[in-house]
Amino acid sequence: MRPVYLDNNATTRVDPEVVQAMLPFFTDQFGNPSSTHGFGAAAFAAVKKARLQLQALIGAELDHEIIFTSGGTESDNAAILSGLEVLPGRTEILISAVEHPAVLTLCAHLEKTRAVKVHTIPVDRHGRLDLDAYRAALTPHVAIVSIMWANNETGTIFPVCKLAELAKEVGALFHTDAVQAVGKLPMDLKSTAIDMLSLSGHKLHGPKGIGALYVKRGVHFRSMITGGRQEHDRRAGTENTPGIVGLGIAAELASKFMDDGTTRVKSLRDRLENGILQGVPNTCVNGDPLARLPNTANISFEHIEGDGIPLLLSRVGIACSAGSACTSGSLEPSHVLRAMKTPDEAVRFSFARDNGEADVDRVLEVMPAIVERLRGVRNSWPDKRSAEDIQSGPCSGAGRSGGRS
Amino acid sequence: MRPVYLDNNATTRVDPEVVQAMLPFFTDQFGNPSSTHGFGAAAFAAVKKARLQLQALIGAELDHEIIFTSGGTESDNAAILSGLEVLPGRTEILISAVEHPAVLTLCAHLEKTRAVKVHTIPVDRHGRLDLDAYRAALTPHVAIVSIMWANNETGTIFPVCKLAELAKEVGALFHTDAVQAVGKLPMDLKSTAIDMLSLSGHKLHGPKGIGALYVKRGVHFRSMITGGRQEHDRRAGTENTPGIVGLGIAAELASKFMDDGTTRVKSLRDRLENGILQGVPNTCVNGDPLARLPNTANISFEHIEGDGIPLLLSRVGIACSAGSACTSGSLEPSHVLRAMKTPDEAVRFSFARDNGEADVDRVLEVMPAIVERLRGVRNSWPDKRSAEDIQSGPCSGAGRSGGRS
Repeated sequence: MRPVYLDNNATTRVDPEVVQAMLPFFTDQFGNPSSTHGFGAAAFAAVKKARLQLQALIGAELDHEIIFTSGGTESDNAAILSGLEVLPGRTEILISAVEHPAVLTLCAHLEKTRAVKVHTIPVDRHGRLDLDAYRAALTPHVAIVSIMWANNETGTIFPVCKLAELAKEVGALFHTDAVQAVGKLPMDLKSTAIDMLSLSGHKLHGPKGIGALYVKRGVHFRSMITGGRQEHDRRAGTENTPGIVGLGIAAELASKFMDDGTTRVKSLRDRLENGILQGVPNTCVNGDPLARLPNTANISFEHIEGDGIPLLLSRVGIACSAGSACTSGSLEPSHVLRAMKTPDEAVRFSFARDNGEADVDRVLEVMPAIVERLRGVRNSWPDKRSAEDIQSGPCSGAGRSGGRS
Repeated sequence: MRPVYLDNNATTRVDPEVVQAMLPFFTDQFGNPSSTHGFGAAAFAAVKKARLQLQALIGAELDHEIIFTSGGTESDNAAILSGLEVLPGRTEILISAVEHPAVLTLCAHLEKTRAVKVHTIPVDRHGRLDLDAYRAALTPHVAIVSIMWANNETGTIFPVCKLAELAKEVGALFHTDAVQAVGKLPMDLKSTAIDMLSLSGHKLHGPKGIGALYVKRGVHFRSMITGGRQEHDRRAGTENTPGIVGLGIAAELASKFMDDGTTRVKSLRDRLENGILQGVPNTCVNGDPLARLPNTANISFEHIEGDGIPLLLSRVGIACSAGSACTSGSLEPSHVLRAMKTPDEAVRFSFARDNGEADVDRVLEVMPAIVERLRGVRNSWPDKRSAEDIQSGPCSGAGRSGGRS
């Protein structure tokens, strides 16, 4: 039976068109873009073209606002470290409680090793940012705000354009980790106050090992990786030409599929959510009912813990995840669900344009038995809760979901 | 006419076997190695295999001594920054004057922004390190030494194994940028005192955008890029599976071609050097006559400045370089030749296993006329030197070369 891949927030299949576009840059136009001879010039031109393709996807004003990096984590790290360096009189950072580890781990390290204070803004039970706490923490001491555009686990979308305007009022830089949002949501950065934005190739059917950091014209930036003068002195190291070319084509394809693709992906996601909510008792959908990525379903199954469902689904060829890939195997509960005070652990199904209805049907077909089996196992253990609890009502963390956007 | 590529120290053509090995990891086994399902497991296994292949090439004791990075520049930066962090009582760095910009630029920045002192060890006119100056600068204040294994411009090989032992005597960490040496020279790191070593995929017929940092077992290391727990918490960010697989195969192929390939490449290089020295008056070879990479020829043509020769060679389809790709276009003279007090600028021809005798013959065929033309142009300008100077003898910076290793 064909495997079913529903873990596209972890990584996506590279589009075959992307691979085709990359191929000549391995063995034919393989020059170093910094070389002045013909081999170099061909590679240089390809990098320029990809920058324009990415500019179009995110609505940057200039292609040179885009710096190619090795991925989302590097982009996040570089943005925050630069913010502290270019505004040395300011020593505070403002983040949300549900940021990606690329932001959280760096900030924890900075707080430990430098005279930096990190404000962590809480979220409510739907994963929505506490705007009052955000406003209260925003002072002229803040060098940089780093708040994600959309959450990788629940898909909850933060109002980053508004948050960026508020940051501007106190002279703080605003960075957003948009790794999960780019390619899924339309963007026009030139009309926003967002100063920096991180994105990653492999989350939008491009290759792994390539990403970008958008830095708005006029925003001072200090390179994290230093050496040669690549990327206008903003990111040293020989340009990953095939990866950059692949990211460019991936961006172009994402633009092309943005409208129809998103509608189709959302209908698949909604079909899965409705099917599970209706077919499996005591389940609920986590995330902001009014502002969620169209491709992400984060579902709690009451009284089932940890990796149980993903593990049994994996045995029948269905890939999904508990929490995110970056923290999987850690056996710690998701920091995102903890911040939302969700009592149960959850399963993330994340769709992409290469999924189809058969994928949803397959999950719905096997899910009731899997849940029954896991709840049965649990019931056979000595436990503080009674068996009646299991079917005693909806999840307490969030309301039942049905076809929400 | 088939183009001739003799700029392999800038970057190499990816071996078709490498590309073939990478392909399945874009569209088929595309999972995130951190994911626990089957897609993830396949990618995880591929990363493990590549680590073993690289371990074999450099003679590491354990595969886990290898951390995959985005390339040589990141590896260099990470090693030096880690050295300062894990030995916080020590505030000095020791480098050579001819290091790659990845080391030089970082050290200059550290000296400007932190309480760090950088000792820069000079080289002689053959590019050989001043060992007395090295010994004198090595004190218990030094946190980390970073001295390259082989120079990217001249191919001069430094005695890094000995230098590492001396560093150990004062408790300093020893890092080597071996980007130009890995795959060209046999290595057995487990039998050396080298603590950290940087390498890059695209210098050994692997892909761009992937490299590694070797960190000897027991050496404390602090990650530069932080976030997810990839690479045993030593380099965050989704693993670049196709790039890693490509680097693994490139390492395996480099091992396979090490002996015969090196002999053949060296004979091509020597043939070119001898041909130029014999066919073009007033030329000389730069670099250590007794310890040079087998693939690199760095040749000064008296009274010809800057990019002249590479530019005219490029017009007839021959790629080589003046200085290195990382500094090309900067119009500044090479810092390596300046450190060697070489009076003339130079042209670098760098070979690889995909070159052949026809490539050498083509260069030798066109070179005399190009040199004559450039020297003629120069003579037609008003100049402080007389025309007689041009043919007045060998270069003053180094002796004539003939078939040296």
